[in-house]
Amino acid sequence: MSSKYIITITRQYGSGGHDIGKALAEKLGISFYDKELISIAAKESGISPEIFKDVDGKAANSLLYSLSTGLYSYGNSFSSMGDLPVNDRLYILQHKIIKELAEKETFIVIGRCADYVLRDYPNVVKVFIYANIDSRVKRAIARHDIDPARAKQAVQKADKRRANYYSFYSGKKWGMVDNYDLCINTTNISIEQAVDIIYDYLNVLGN
Amino acid sequence: MSSKYIITITRQYGSGGHDIGKALAEKLGISFYDKELISIAAKESGISPEIFKDVDGKAANSLLYSLSTGLYSYGNSFSSMGDLPVNDRLYILQHKIIKELAEKETFIVIGRCADYVLRDYPNVVKVFIYANIDSRVKRAIARHDIDPARAKQAVQKADKRRANYYSFYSGKKWGMVDNYDLCINTTNISIEQAVDIIYDYLNVLGN
Repeated sequence: MSSKYIITITRQYGSGGHDIGKALAEKLGISFYDKELISIAAKESGISPEIFKDVDGKAANSLLYSLSTGLYSYGNSFSSMGDLPVNDRLYILQHKIIKELAEKETFIVIGRCADYVLRDYPNVVKVFIYANIDSRVKRAIARHDIDPARAKQAVQKADKRRANYYSFYSGKKWGMVDNYDLCINTTNISIEQAVDIIYDYLNVLGN
Repeated sequence: MSSKYIITITRQYGSGGHDIGKALAEKLGISFYDKELISIAAKESGISPEIFKDVDGKAANSLLYSLSTGLYSYGNSFSSMGDLPVNDRLYILQHKIIKELAEKETFIVIGRCADYVLRDYPNVVKVFIYANIDSRVKRAIARHDIDPARAKQAVQKADKRRANYYSFYSGKKWGMVDNYDLCINTTNISIEQAVDIIYDYLNVLGN
């Protein structure tokens, strides 16, 4: 890898993607962004982080057309965002923050269509983390204190929300291999093993 | 990894999957099976390897029902295969040979629904190799002496045949991440890098 690179991690709910990203960032000594982007967006916009947290990862009205045609431009404030729903405002702000970060540092970012946002950037490694439904349900119960009786439904609902969000803003299908450089199934491996796999992968790319 | 393991490689046409498998087998010092399975099947059945080569990777009539319900049993010869099309005979024989090999040695096998055939076996690492269409067309032209004007069509046709073959015999969708442990995009990496990525992956699994 070149001296500056970005790793985007897309993950199925309960697959361990967040923990893998966090541990990998620590191992590599680079920045890590997941919910952290909301705090930055909140700070930049003056909108309460609580409001943003509530809509994070949920698609709203279609920005795709205006973004793709360049009809939509945004500045440093919300002054140009008119009456856009808060979901779309958050997407635009995160989109802008991710691009700004990409100009200046090496980092790992979780979700947020970052692979799509950075599609034209060099040195972006796009990782997809997934696992079978049983192991994801098990992990979700252990990690998020979800009622076991409703865990499967919750996992499927969370994935559906992520898929909708991704296809809504990117126009592409979430979880298709074509969008990623490396896809790792965590059904039978630990967080540490997944971290090592990506770490080794980066080393091979640097060869 | 335990002392005995099997690597199945499913690959999009032109993605370099065959070469990656062959080089990895050499690096690991283990057996490699691709077209080699046809020679073994021909030897066991007494049918000409040329006839088998002609139908390799093409789905024929549905065996799925009879195989899945256990109504279909096969012996060492073709005596129990009745009037099955040669495609299905080849599938059954390869299926049987792969299972026999899995009992006694460590190897890499390319295609042939091996990931599905060995779905209940322990220590099977299922790899999917893919790349974007442009890089696959380029590789196919360089490697297979395909007419550049028709290369894209040929690549897409080959993939369609593989997808049909896989879903015909396994009842599952070819190229979906869920079927694999590790998926590697070879668009921007070399054969050697892909080999090293899988090699390192196996090492991490052995930790």
